[in-house]
Amino acid sequence: MFNSIHEECGVFGVFENKTTNVAQTTYLGLFALQHRGQESAGIAVCDDGIFRHYKGKGLVENVFTKESLDSLGKGNMAIGHVRYSTTGGDNPNNIQPLTVRHVKGNLALAHNGNLTNADELRKSFEMNGAIFHATSDTESIAYAIVRERINSSSIEEAINHAMSDIKGAYSCIAMSATKLIAFRDPNGFRPLCIGYTADNGYVVASESCAIDSIGGKFIRDILPGEIVVITKDGITSIKDHCNEAPHKLCVFEFIYFARPDSVIEGSSVHHARITAGKYLYEESGVDADVVIGVPDSGLDAALGYSQASGIPYGIGFLKNKYIGRSFIKPSQAQRENAVRIKLNVIKETVEGKRVILIDDSIVRGTTSKRIVKLIREAGAKEVHMRISAPPFISQCYFGTDVDSKENLIACKYDNVSDIAKIIGVDSLAYLSLDAAHKLATNSKCDFCDGCFTGKYPVEVPTNIEKNKFEQKISESKNN
Amino acid sequence: MFNSIHEECGVFGVFENKTTNVAQTTYLGLFALQHRGQESAGIAVCDDGIFRHYKGKGLVENVFTKESLDSLGKGNMAIGHVRYSTTGGDNPNNIQPLTVRHVKGNLALAHNGNLTNADELRKSFEMNGAIFHATSDTESIAYAIVRERINSSSIEEAINHAMSDIKGAYSCIAMSATKLIAFRDPNGFRPLCIGYTADNGYVVASESCAIDSIGGKFIRDILPGEIVVITKDGITSIKDHCNEAPHKLCVFEFIYFARPDSVIEGSSVHHARITAGKYLYEESGVDADVVIGVPDSGLDAALGYSQASGIPYGIGFLKNKYIGRSFIKPSQAQRENAVRIKLNVIKETVEGKRVILIDDSIVRGTTSKRIVKLIREAGAKEVHMRISAPPFISQCYFGTDVDSKENLIACKYDNVSDIAKIIGVDSLAYLSLDAAHKLATNSKCDFCDGCFTGKYPVEVPTNIEKNKFEQKISESKNN
Amino acid sequence: MFNSIHEECGVFGVFENKTTNVAQTTYLGLFALQHRGQESAGIAVCDDGIFRHYKGKGLVENVFTKESLDSLGKGNMAIGHVRYSTTGGDNPNNIQPLTVRHVKGNLALAHNGNLTNADELRKSFEMNGAIFHATSDTESIAYAIVRERINSSSIEEAINHAMSDIKGAYSCIAMSATKLIAFRDPNGFRPLCIGYTADNGYVVASESCAIDSIGGKFIRDILPGEIVVITKDGITSIKDHCNEAPHKLCVFEFIYFARPDSVIEGSSVHHARITAGKYLYEESGVDADVVIGVPDSGLDAALGYSQASGIPYGIGFLKNKYIGRSFIKPSQAQRENAVRIKLNVIKETVEGKRVILIDDSIVRGTTSKRIVKLIREAGAKEVHMRISAPPFISQCYFGTDVDSKENLIACKYDNVSDIAKIIGVDSLAYLSLDAAHKLATNSKCDFCDGCFTGKYPVEVPTNIEKNKFEQKISESKNN
Amino acid sequence: MFNSIHEECGVFGVFENKTTNVAQTTYLGLFALQHRGQESAGIAVCDDGIFRHYKGKGLVENVFTKESLDSLGKGNMAIGHVRYSTTGGDNPNNIQPLTVRHVKGNLALAHNGNLTNADELRKSFEMNGAIFHATSDTESIAYAIVRERINSSSIEEAINHAMSDIKGAYSCIAMSATKLIAFRDPNGFRPLCIGYTADNGYVVASESCAIDSIGGKFIRDILPGEIVVITKDGITSIKDHCNEAPHKLCVFEFIYFARPDSVIEGSSVHHARITAGKYLYEESGVDADVVIGVPDSGLDAALGYSQASGIPYGIGFLKNKYIGRSFIKPSQAQRENAVRIKLNVIKETVEGKRVILIDDSIVRGTTSKRIVKLIREAGAKEVHMRISAPPFISQCYFGTDVDSKENLIACKYDNVSDIAKIIGVDSLAYLSLDAAHKLATNSKCDFCDGCFTGKYPVEVPTNIEKNKFEQKISESKNN
Repeated sequence: MFNSIHEECGVFGVFENKTTNVAQTTYLGLFALQHRGQESAGIAVCDDGIFRHYKGKGLVENVFTKESLDSLGKGNMAIGHVRYSTTGGDNPNNIQPLTVRHVKGNLALAHNGNLTNADELRKSFEMNGAIFHATSDTESIAYAIVRERINSSSIEEAINHAMSDIKGAYSCIAMSATKLIAFRDPNGFRPLCIGYTADNGYVVASESCAIDSIGGKFIRDILPGEIVVITKDGITSIKDHCNEAPHKLCVFEFIYFARPDSVIEGSSVHHARITAGKYLYEESGVDADVVIGVPDSGLDAALGYSQASGIPYGIGFLKNKYIGRSFIKPSQAQRENAVRIKLNVIKETVEGKRVILIDDSIVRGTTSKRIVKLIREAGAKEVHMRISAPPFISQCYFGTDVDSKENLIACKYDNVSDIAKIIGVDSLAYLSLDAAHKLATNSKCDFCDGCFTGKYPVEVPTNIEKNKFEQKISESKNN
Repeated sequence: MFNSIHEECGVFGVFENKTTNVAQTTYLGLFALQHRGQESAGIAVCDDGIFRHYKGKGLVENVFTKESLDSLGKGNMAIGHVRYSTTGGDNPNNIQPLTVRHVKGNLALAHNGNLTNADELRKSFEMNGAIFHATSDTESIAYAIVRERINSSSIEEAINHAMSDIKGAYSCIAMSATKLIAFRDPNGFRPLCIGYTADNGYVVASESCAIDSIGGKFIRDILPGEIVVITKDGITSIKDHCNEAPHKLCVFEFIYFARPDSVIEGSSVHHARITAGKYLYEESGVDADVVIGVPDSGLDAALGYSQASGIPYGIGFLKNKYIGRSFIKPSQAQRENAVRIKLNVIKETVEGKRVILIDDSIVRGTTSKRIVKLIREAGAKEVHMRISAPPFISQCYFGTDVDSKENLIACKYDNVSDIAKIIGVDSLAYLSLDAAHKLATNSKCDFCDGCFTGKYPVEVPTNIEKNKFEQKISESKNN
Repeated sequence: MFNSIHEECGVFGVFENKTTNVAQTTYLGLFALQHRGQESAGIAVCDDGIFRHYKGKGLVENVFTKESLDSLGKGNMAIGHVRYSTTGGDNPNNIQPLTVRHVKGNLALAHNGNLTNADELRKSFEMNGAIFHATSDTESIAYAIVRERINSSSIEEAINHAMSDIKGAYSCIAMSATKLIAFRDPNGFRPLCIGYTADNGYVVASESCAIDSIGGKFIRDILPGEIVVITKDGITSIKDHCNEAPHKLCVFEFIYFARPDSVIEGSSVHHARITAGKYLYEESGVDADVVIGVPDSGLDAALGYSQASGIPYGIGFLKNKYIGRSFIKPSQAQRENAVRIKLNVIKETVEGKRVILIDDSIVRGTTSKRIVKLIREAGAKEVHMRISAPPFISQCYFGTDVDSKENLIACKYDNVSDIAKIIGVDSLAYLSLDAAHKLATNSKCDFCDGCFTGKYPVEVPTNIEKNKFEQKISESKNN
Repeated sequence: MFNSIHEECGVFGVFENKTTNVAQTTYLGLFALQHRGQESAGIAVCDDGIFRHYKGKGLVENVFTKESLDSLGKGNMAIGHVRYSTTGGDNPNNIQPLTVRHVKGNLALAHNGNLTNADELRKSFEMNGAIFHATSDTESIAYAIVRERINSSSIEEAINHAMSDIKGAYSCIAMSATKLIAFRDPNGFRPLCIGYTADNGYVVASESCAIDSIGGKFIRDILPGEIVVITKDGITSIKDHCNEAPHKLCVFEFIYFARPDSVIEGSSVHHARITAGKYLYEESGVDADVVIGVPDSGLDAALGYSQASGIPYGIGFLKNKYIGRSFIKPSQAQRENAVRIKLNVIKETVEGKRVILIDDSIVRGTTSKRIVKLIREAGAKEVHMRISAPPFISQCYFGTDVDSKENLIACKYDNVSDIAKIIGVDSLAYLSLDAAHKLATNSKCDFCDGCFTGKYPVEVPTNIEKNKFEQKISESKNN
């Protein structure tokens, strides 16, 4: 599936016990989280209380040159962020980490998620004279913290108070002059974990793969509602906002967003996807000659389906790894043909065969239709499509950018057989909601399934006709 | 003289009666003001209440590509800014115009000058929960306005109130969703003027040359203390902060910063420099064969000296116009020779002659010494240097970045003949303070001469041991 | 395996029956061939006899911007080239296609391969007054053609004569003002095939995947020794240099260079690799719990091994697809850890298991050693490495850049068990030479196996102590 | 005058007695010659017989980054080139220095000028099998040398023979593995001079200002027809092609191309322009209040006119030095106004006055008309234009790119008063041809005045209907 669902962010932070090249460490960590956001990247370094930052649009590799990375200098702490910017959010001021000064000093903040009461918060701060540089929710989190900081004895106390005010999804890393603080909303919508660096410092990251990438050692997930405070004296934890309710991790972290080599809430992402493939076979098995996955995220589930069914696993596609962001799209006339530039079928694998094709989702259906056409042209006798998630029917309020309802094929067509016809497959089946809830091996980890059910674990904004970015723009017209 | 004194900014704003290419107009205007700041540039456009901005480091020509200029779209208002960033101020968030949202909508702000109570202001806002993205004074001005805006009926009323709180030098252009507002501090330290665009709209700019450059028509200077409000209903003016005291324009605007084709406070800058040359002759005339000026700012005064003295004017130097910001400086060994790459003497003009050399200032003396050496090597028999300003001896608090006292040659040496010896000239004289005060033809225009006298027209911060940037950094260490 | 063996080029050409966007078509084709060379790229367009070209260092995506691609304009023919530049060959003049003028008009030439008599040819032309801009063999091919062109009635006749003079490996595409001509050396060292475009024109390419990528239809391979001439009157073929001897395709085209979705000499590359995996099992099977391949080129053989052995196929690695050419390598201290940034083990797949690890080659052994270490750290109980090719022991003279002998681990150590020990595996086996010769399904397709045997199908230069680039440089010192 | 006449090149070469940073020296030298060509730049370094080069489109400052300059390494010789590329000559292969290999080794060549028998030469080489990469004449010079080199005992002997074959204008610097050789055509159309470097090496350059710029010491002009050979044993000279006829320097070198601080053929360029101003007064004096020059090249002549007439010299314009090659031109609607962005009138200088305006040429008249309009709008009572050269009426065959005849205003209108009317001046006069011939102080220096008379010192190509670039393109269509 080509980039039709988007997660908004990856966060990374490092605390070392000495002044060292923390910018370089964060740079490496962001590479491992690049799949979580490709629109912009930034790093803020704390060097004995002095903050330096560098941010820009584009991939980590493009934002950071040798020169700009070196300009960050050394330090003992750094935080970094990669971001996917949604429509209307093209304001360069939105690039994170946010780095600001307040009455008690410097604060840098990196945030993954989406607040549900962002507009109310913003308004309350503005009524008190606040000015906003960005349109992201992150600045509201910063104001919430800073407002509490005035009468709090420490930054962590301020964060603890502020967490009573901010609602929705947030996995955050904050950096003050002396502390690195990670905190996560009480539902645990977005992942966040902690580990040791190779030098016995600490690392915090959206996914464990980033800890691996810097040669660190995974410790555990930050708990939903937990505040972890790292100082030169070690780690402490504030759990006032923790509770015993099942976690509400975004199910798409397992199905699509996270890297298969990450472990989230105690479950291997790769294993969860293998499991999805097994359930797909159990729920909607069909006889065939080969099982293939759409790269990259469909491959694991395809292998799971193959293992469960005994139908051979095949490598069905060659994905061109050189197509990057500067690729010049061909003119309309050539476009239809040019699908194959990104994804070519390995004819050998499918020719003359009954093919089971596994993907992680169908959004509008256009891409799926093209892929099926390629497989048929390569000589497949039958194509049976299996989707390793339930169908999308509703909006996400917690940081995933799903297409608008009128574009979602599962909203436009009542039954699956209609969709199968449009896409051109012999059969089509989705993963059941029940199966989706069983993907994690950890019993405490439940999922938010709002995008499949329209039912959300917390209250969501009611004004759902307009998307929030249109709202923001229209508001900003008044003077 | 090569770039040893720096002015911090140029501002530009345009208001048209229809939606048109105001970004392009501002782009042209900033080109005309580029001499006022070469470190960064930015433009903010208002398109029916929606704000778009683009900012970056470097010259206007480098910051704005066709693509980034087009990304600003059309609109009926725009403001722009060019900036010279002082040490410690390399924070990209400092690039102007500042564009923020507050309780009543969008605000963009472009500022030239320097506040004297910036630190107190900042602290008072922070105590109320404010967060600062930038280290420039401009954000404090914005907070001052926004704080007043909550209880004011209009943005101009808020500015009027805010002007009671902010002290020092400020020539500002603000843009709200419907209004373009220009305001200038009561002393008028920095210039600001208004004109018509070719389409009967309005233009506001630091210097009149920017009005010329867009084919506009100069109307008048904004008065010290005046607030000019431009809406679709025309122009109105608030003069609560105007007074009858003589204006305190920075004298270096005439001597060095402003373009000779600009008219400030009713006086032609070119004419003021010609006049400086005449006074130099009257005060310290010497017999010679030719008068030459150091390009570019010494040329006018040299012509004035020639006219007054009857000594022929000569073109003494070829300045290489291709040496830009990407020039790779030669290694130390080659550096001494490489002075000539920037400025070569036209031997024909000086060989065998007694030369009067006019420059606008001597800061450290190093450059002057090299230039004198070049002239002597080209065969000059005598070199008499005349400086079209009094000697620097003190810091500026109003937006000019003078070298620190320990580097100023006029601070290190008590008398002029010592300096003459170091620089290697046969004689040296500066313009008198009295003459400097007579450079403007307009009697209402007096000057701030703090950098020559150490006496300032308004109270200045007392903590003068440390420069303010060091202060800011040390403060920011606390948490 | 990380990029330790290098193929030098990919070639692409298109002939349409009307003036159209052939530059865009070639751009797409080069994307599909990017794996064959990443150092530079170029396109030459023929527009009614007028030639335009654009070439540069870097990936296709970086060399061609919208602007540079548009600068090529439209035309009815174009050729393109991607290149891997070997040490000493960093001369920008070497970037292809070569575009020159000779007595009969324009000629553009794109070449994949390496001549064995390049030096003699060059000397003979130089003795006649020739000047060389590049150090590549391609310019010698051009001279050979142009020398014959003077007394030939057509460009194809000149090529036919020239082919008697040039020895070694060459798959070439030439473009004159009216003709597109593809020709291949009589041994067929490098692949070259032809197809139809979607508009009934013709396309020639190094691999069939490039024909797929533009929505074309594969026709057949160009025969070893064949000259295919495409004009507006259609296709003709000259076969004077064809013979009945078995083809001598570079075996590494199947094992490593070519894309798995390509079909070469009638055999699917994917299938050939699956077959290699099967032979590996048959020749050196070992009991284990999972078979994994090193991405990307080891995956197919791993699947083949799994299919033949019944041992489950696993997805063992996550390869970070965002690490590009601008990645800033970490400092030495961090480097060891940073292996994982490129390739992280999926612990779930290998933990507690006996692992069979398939790769396509071992060059120095360093990378293999690190990969094995990662797998062990992830908890593998045993690691058995199988290599889908025989060991390298000798130089290639036909366009593959193998490491020098003193670095090749298979030259340094006599027996496989020593290598196994160094790499840290429980067992190690290579594909046998016999099996390598059976990878193609087409009986006419035999292979050059010089790099495994030191025996070459044609005479090779005897001066093998120095590599040819050192030679070239030392020669060029004389005057 | 804005860039309507173009000179094609500047050349620079350095020979040091030790291995040192000759690339840096050449980089500085090219900066001093940048005015002679702004389209491309290149440097070739010889390091103990090994050649490295770097070339690119754009200004010296843009072509050479720290990285690309460093990539050239050190050496004991280097040559460099700046180029203005004429229409049709946008082939990147044309960027100089040309660096090739021939039978006796490496050769680098930098050329300023234009051959009159380039086409015949090219054809004769092509008939012998030559291939041409570039469309510039330089490659023909290289072939002529290389052809002779085969049977010559040295490179300088080959050059001496080749000079019998090549006709027209050429000031060249050649570099072999051990020698730096400068040679100039027997008419001396283009300047070329020699000096010492600061380290007692030698420097050769188009103009003496480049010698100054590297801290060198001017020795003398290379004679027309002379070959100067520099080796580690010192300098020798071959004068077989020298003769006693008056030199035929391009008169526009004095009037427009060369830098005023250069000395050519013993005459100061600044002085020659002062002299042109004096002759203008003597030939067509008019009473007025002020004399102003159009920057930059009209300033010297204006000063000369002022000195001769006693009418005060004024600084009439501010030329915006920030308008570079990346300036985004305003849309048509704004363009008329935007003239002032480049050149603003200093009102103070011209208001209410009778103005004499000096420029170096009128090509199409469009720019002159706009400038005159600006002066009138600034309040000038009268505008009298004086041109410091005779009117253009004919093409140049020796390296100057004059507009085509149908565009030249002096070709379209028979008498000067018609032109005056179009341009909008009260009177207009050109320098007489006689006066132009008296600009040099050196009696041996006469001028080529072909562009003013249509009479050329050597035979020129007869096919003048089409310009040579159109010819080349049409020829290249044949196959």
